[in-house]
Amino acid sequence: MPSPKFISFTRDGRPGYGVLAEDRVVDLSARHASRWPTLRQVIEDGALLSLAEEAASLQPDFPVEEVRFEIPIPTPEKLICVGVNFPDRNEEYKDGQAAPSNPSLFIRFPRSFTGHDRPLIRPSESPQLDYEGEIVIVIGKGGRRIREAEALNHIAALTLCNEGTIRDWVRHAKFNVTQGKNFDQTGSIGPWLIPYASEDQIADIKLETRVNGEVRQSDRTSRMIFSFRRIINYVSTFTTLVPGDVIVTGTPTGAGARFDPPIWLKPGDVVEVEAEGIGILRNTIADEA
Amino acid sequence: MPSPKFISFTRDGRPGYGVLAEDRVVDLSARHASRWPTLRQVIEDGALLSLAEEAASLQPDFPVEEVRFEIPIPTPEKLICVGVNFPDRNEEYKDGQAAPSNPSLFIRFPRSFTGHDRPLIRPSESPQLDYEGEIVIVIGKGGRRIREAEALNHIAALTLCNEGTIRDWVRHAKFNVTQGKNFDQTGSIGPWLIPYASEDQIADIKLETRVNGEVRQSDRTSRMIFSFRRIINYVSTFTTLVPGDVIVTGTPTGAGARFDPPIWLKPGDVVEVEAEGIGILRNTIADEA
Repeated sequence: MPSPKFISFTRDGRPGYGVLAEDRVVDLSARHASRWPTLRQVIEDGALLSLAEEAASLQPDFPVEEVRFEIPIPTPEKLICVGVNFPDRNEEYKDGQAAPSNPSLFIRFPRSFTGHDRPLIRPSESPQLDYEGEIVIVIGKGGRRIREAEALNHIAALTLCNEGTIRDWVRHAKFNVTQGKNFDQTGSIGPWLIPYASEDQIADIKLETRVNGEVRQSDRTSRMIFSFRRIINYVSTFTTLVPGDVIVTGTPTGAGARFDPPIWLKPGDVVEVEAEGIGILRNTIADEA
Repeated sequence: MPSPKFISFTRDGRPGYGVLAEDRVVDLSARHASRWPTLRQVIEDGALLSLAEEAASLQPDFPVEEVRFEIPIPTPEKLICVGVNFPDRNEEYKDGQAAPSNPSLFIRFPRSFTGHDRPLIRPSESPQLDYEGEIVIVIGKGGRRIREAEALNHIAALTLCNEGTIRDWVRHAKFNVTQGKNFDQTGSIGPWLIPYASEDQIADIKLETRVNGEVRQSDRTSRMIFSFRRIINYVSTFTTLVPGDVIVTGTPTGAGARFDPPIWLKPGDVVEVEAEGIGILRNTIADEA
């Protein structure tokens, strides 16, 4: 059986979630929203796999064209991003520093993201909208000071992220990338959640970002500086992870800022982030209305 | 009439909110929790002042000793902190840089804070727990690109923060202060929300931090590098503010890291953050259980 694809969506103005069956949707929120308002509560209850089974036995309810994709976990308690996690990315900073011994981390608000198939918004403040394709892990079992040996057992699901960034606002102040990483709807998460079943799904998969079909970033997860295990271990050292927490695990070299001169995203561009076994996250670029 | 003091609390294991009347509590959640589950929804509905009036007409329900203080907005959509916002703080970094033209911002998760009168937790990973006394604004009216002239009309309430920090983890990685600012329960917010009524409440008030009664930080809000107006304007440039958002506005010089050698907080220490017209936020220090 292929992996079930859990989506969060808006349909007729109402939020929902379900499973994609080809080009149609099995609406699980219509059946279970009182018990599990969003996929976050489904994951919290460990009900992802039983819901996948239920969905497989049901007739789909409506075509996917009727829904607008939302980020898979609409309101996670935490949404944490790892910076500088692939070879050559550290060198791109040209600050003469050796590779770091601990992952750089920053936080994004859910509203800085939009769903699959929806436009990333280039704000009026800057033309420097840039892409960063990344793999996302969603925490299933919470914990603090999770050991690396146990870390993968804490993953519930996988998805993708275009961790879109306003480059000049990343260094707008003395410290921290906060503002350049948090313009409304400059990034995307999706298209769906794939339940995590085994390390094979993430140990050595290709992660690629294309702009208008041209490959800009391409690398394999086996080359990550900080492994999925290490990230979960490190983050849980200071904060208690809870079900539904979202961790965006870092981007390969080749962002638009890397080119000379830099190539920023412009309205009409199409960005695709693809990872083997997870899917393709696709967004166009639009100026703010 | 003195300003009403809105508290969020846990009593008999259940969350609630109310107004403090001397040493007793008017339990508003018992009357309104179905309509407004937390103070965030009260603020969203603009009901803070009408609830204050209602509370003034009621007999208190139980003594404050029966509650455990929680952070006033338990689950804000955003909790944003301003770094380096008082004179001399920039010089403390000794990096030869001129005063910044935009505020440094970082994000904390609510679980990195605890409520008034509860211990700040020194984790086993580091002895470098440090205090930072700050004034907190809570957003009442949301918006994007809020003009400075209008900014103060977007404030619903005021409170205090001990923006407790694990110093060596602030520079644990190549970029960003995320991890040093997000150890569980290393900071506090409270003790209560004071409804915002006029600029006099914040324009030029004294902000002081004491450790075991000794004044360590003392300055006035009129000396802030980035005013409350400017902070609201700047933050709302990139992210849409919504009711209940919490902004921690920066600390005066005099944190423990400033001393030579540095003076870290240790178990049994009592830290008080006080601001005129808002109150005193008091916490002891404890090692992790």
